[in-house]
Amino acid sequence: MTTVSVEHALAGKLPVGGEVTVRGWVRTRRDSKAGLSFVNVSDGSCFAPIQVVAPASLSNYESEVKRLTAGCAVVCTGTLAQSQGQGQAFEIQAESIEVVGWVDDPETYPIQPKAHSLEFLREVAHLRPRTNLFGAVTRIRDCLAKAVHRYFHEQSYFWISTPIITTSDAEGAGQMFRVSTLDLANLPLGEDGAVDFGQDFFGKETFLTVSGQLNVEAYCLALSRVYTFGPTFRAEHSNTSRHLAEFWMVEPEIAFADLAEDARVAEEFLKYLFRAVLHERGDDMAFIAQRVQPDAIARLEAFVNAPFERISYTEAVALLQRSGQKFEFPVEWGLDLQTEHERWLTEVHVGRPVVVTDYPEHIKAFYMRLNDDGRTVAAMDVLAPGIGEIIGGSQREERLDVLDKRMAQFGLDPAHYQWYRDFRRYGTVPHAGFGLGFERLVVYTCGLANIRDAIPYPRAPGHAEF
Amino acid sequence: MTTVSVEHALAGKLPVGGEVTVRGWVRTRRDSKAGLSFVNVSDGSCFAPIQVVAPASLSNYESEVKRLTAGCAVVCTGTLAQSQGQGQAFEIQAESIEVVGWVDDPETYPIQPKAHSLEFLREVAHLRPRTNLFGAVTRIRDCLAKAVHRYFHEQSYFWISTPIITTSDAEGAGQMFRVSTLDLANLPLGEDGAVDFGQDFFGKETFLTVSGQLNVEAYCLALSRVYTFGPTFRAEHSNTSRHLAEFWMVEPEIAFADLAEDARVAEEFLKYLFRAVLHERGDDMAFIAQRVQPDAIARLEAFVNAPFERISYTEAVALLQRSGQKFEFPVEWGLDLQTEHERWLTEVHVGRPVVVTDYPEHIKAFYMRLNDDGRTVAAMDVLAPGIGEIIGGSQREERLDVLDKRMAQFGLDPAHYQWYRDFRRYGTVPHAGFGLGFERLVVYTCGLANIRDAIPYPRAPGHAEF
Repeated sequence: MTTVSVEHALAGKLPVGGEVTVRGWVRTRRDSKAGLSFVNVSDGSCFAPIQVVAPASLSNYESEVKRLTAGCAVVCTGTLAQSQGQGQAFEIQAESIEVVGWVDDPETYPIQPKAHSLEFLREVAHLRPRTNLFGAVTRIRDCLAKAVHRYFHEQSYFWISTPIITTSDAEGAGQMFRVSTLDLANLPLGEDGAVDFGQDFFGKETFLTVSGQLNVEAYCLALSRVYTFGPTFRAEHSNTSRHLAEFWMVEPEIAFADLAEDARVAEEFLKYLFRAVLHERGDDMAFIAQRVQPDAIARLEAFVNAPFERISYTEAVALLQRSGQKFEFPVEWGLDLQTEHERWLTEVHVGRPVVVTDYPEHIKAFYMRLNDDGRTVAAMDVLAPGIGEIIGGSQREERLDVLDKRMAQFGLDPAHYQWYRDFRRYGTVPHAGFGLGFERLVVYTCGLANIRDAIPYPRAPGHAEF
Repeated sequence: MTTVSVEHALAGKLPVGGEVTVRGWVRTRRDSKAGLSFVNVSDGSCFAPIQVVAPASLSNYESEVKRLTAGCAVVCTGTLAQSQGQGQAFEIQAESIEVVGWVDDPETYPIQPKAHSLEFLREVAHLRPRTNLFGAVTRIRDCLAKAVHRYFHEQSYFWISTPIITTSDAEGAGQMFRVSTLDLANLPLGEDGAVDFGQDFFGKETFLTVSGQLNVEAYCLALSRVYTFGPTFRAEHSNTSRHLAEFWMVEPEIAFADLAEDARVAEEFLKYLFRAVLHERGDDMAFIAQRVQPDAIARLEAFVNAPFERISYTEAVALLQRSGQKFEFPVEWGLDLQTEHERWLTEVHVGRPVVVTDYPEHIKAFYMRLNDDGRTVAAMDVLAPGIGEIIGGSQREERLDVLDKRMAQFGLDPAHYQWYRDFRRYGTVPHAGFGLGFERLVVYTCGLANIRDAIPYPRAPGHAEF
């Protein structure tokens, strides 16, 4: 007896006629008039379940097999056989089906073998991985995450886990979550009547990080190629389908790189990720294309085959102004591009991914490198059809005197950034990097409409995990 | 001209006599009486720097090359040559050395080419990756992290990112950090005078997670093999060299697994990780063995070559009692094992890693499976020479009625764990998992004495990153 995963049993590498055992959960059961039952069993190892053919001769056929419902846990042993049925190459002719876990009250079991609304499934987040969709999303998400690490490994980048609890606000913007162990019913106050954070856990005011970039820059200026892949947080009450309070970010940082190199890496990286999904998760992507987003596969294929276009922000504004298109938000040099503008550029005007570069300095972060024109910074956004911005990056300001001016302009206290200024004093080099919101990537790959469906547990008031 | 990493230049795969460019930071400069200088340049891609031989004929030899100090950033172009010097196979005969970044005030630059105390380096955490030691630790840490993902990928586990912000306390113990956006100067109070968390960001009281295990169990009962690898938090003021407030945990969860299978996976997994380090980071481990921990390599080799011993907690207590060894803490059935006991077992008694199993139920967490004796649970700790406990795991209580009794015994409110109870009602199966503190693993691999040296930025009041 060989215990194998369903993926292994279906892969065509085991001898037909051999005995195998699979373990998993019942998806469906169908009883044939011929006196046998077809039990589809999934163990999550791949998209497809395996069909287990249960003859009436099984000792527990009437007492148990015919009572199996969706969600029951079973251990099935039998002979691997070529399947006569449609849609599967192999099946198991069962010699035994052991029921390991029943479903209490099958009538009220939330995951019935039918389509559920995504809203409903968010309320049973702990059970939704048992659905076809969330099994697929989970495997695709895993595939993307593994590909992130593999790409950087192949390109000699080192993974750095930057601090989650921090006192610095990397963006100089963004609302942050406070982290504290102070007793709210009994807050220590200083002589000025303000809360005395000297008595908090770290002896000062601390928050959840919004980005690991500033921290990882220090490692870049020692190890040349580094990246973060970890959670980041924004306490913004933008209750939209595009924002999360907690999300994972990928942030590579590259020494001796300018903006053009940054864009080259971003393009190579994204294509690498999508190629991995196309090669490794064809089963799940076929389901996504069938049920969620008809062009899901086609658009990833187009993405990996198309060279990205590069245009400057200034050109982009001119193109938008000349487009004859009516936009909700104004288009004017100096204003940020809105999603509608980004999507027109990438979807209508170019028809492939676009890297927009060199934005006005006052709409971008203080750490972005000032261009020689004095009006723009070496920033880039990668825009893609179907989603808009997917990556944001920049060359960093490596000149201490310019950085200090920019910080003053943004009202930042240099004393607070002394450590960040330090590695501009000590062997500074041109360097660049970008940020990729990992859930945005999952949303795009899986054709999801709501970013809450791209995370293992949707995080919102009243939801299951809280 | 080919720009290559130092690792690539030293690997022996480039043609000797060809022109190459390397970019990095000066470690040392030595001027020879023969009128040339030897500049050691590191880019962090491997442990070794490359020796760049600078002849006096360089146009900036007197003006710049002879002023180079540790930390200066340079771009060096020249001919790759077999080295006459000791300790390196290749060097670069420079045709040009461009200084990209000087060091302001070299006298006060914190990272001098000499040994620094670890205490001092924690105060300049943003610069310490430029030292030999922290370059090595960073690369080893990266190697371990990549091996974690690779092992699970090869074994068909899917990565799950469980919630960081949570309302549940997975362990029923452990002090937690509060996460909040409430204005501390103006806290909203309910009618009972208590803080009204209904007005907080998530509409309830939230904390930083102490473990992803309970969440990942739900995915295990759908996808069979899953794991977390993410940050966890403990707000314990144990200001020791062994504890961190923020640390990364690896938590696999395996369906249809009992405690023996759990221990088998833990053993295979740890050996896989150490083999990866021995194979991939020999350069850094050689430095560790030379400067930090003389037996660093030998003990990893012994680890991967030795079968782990298995003994029950009950046997372990008997062995300790019969040992004749004097311990600080008492040894008695029912009391938890202390580090001194664990180290005696693994270092003195067995001389190899030991899996201790089946602990008294009252000293372990509520979710661990009660054994048939009613007194012990199917828990395990993996103990290793030189560190003590490195992995803790258990088979989980999959029987709802027993779980409910255990929760009552621990004073936990079943209503709060309704979702956790749910997947014991719906197709429950035996399952098991374990937790590996990632920084503990780094500490052990790198022979470090203080766990703050195993993280990219030491986290403590007053430190650089805050």
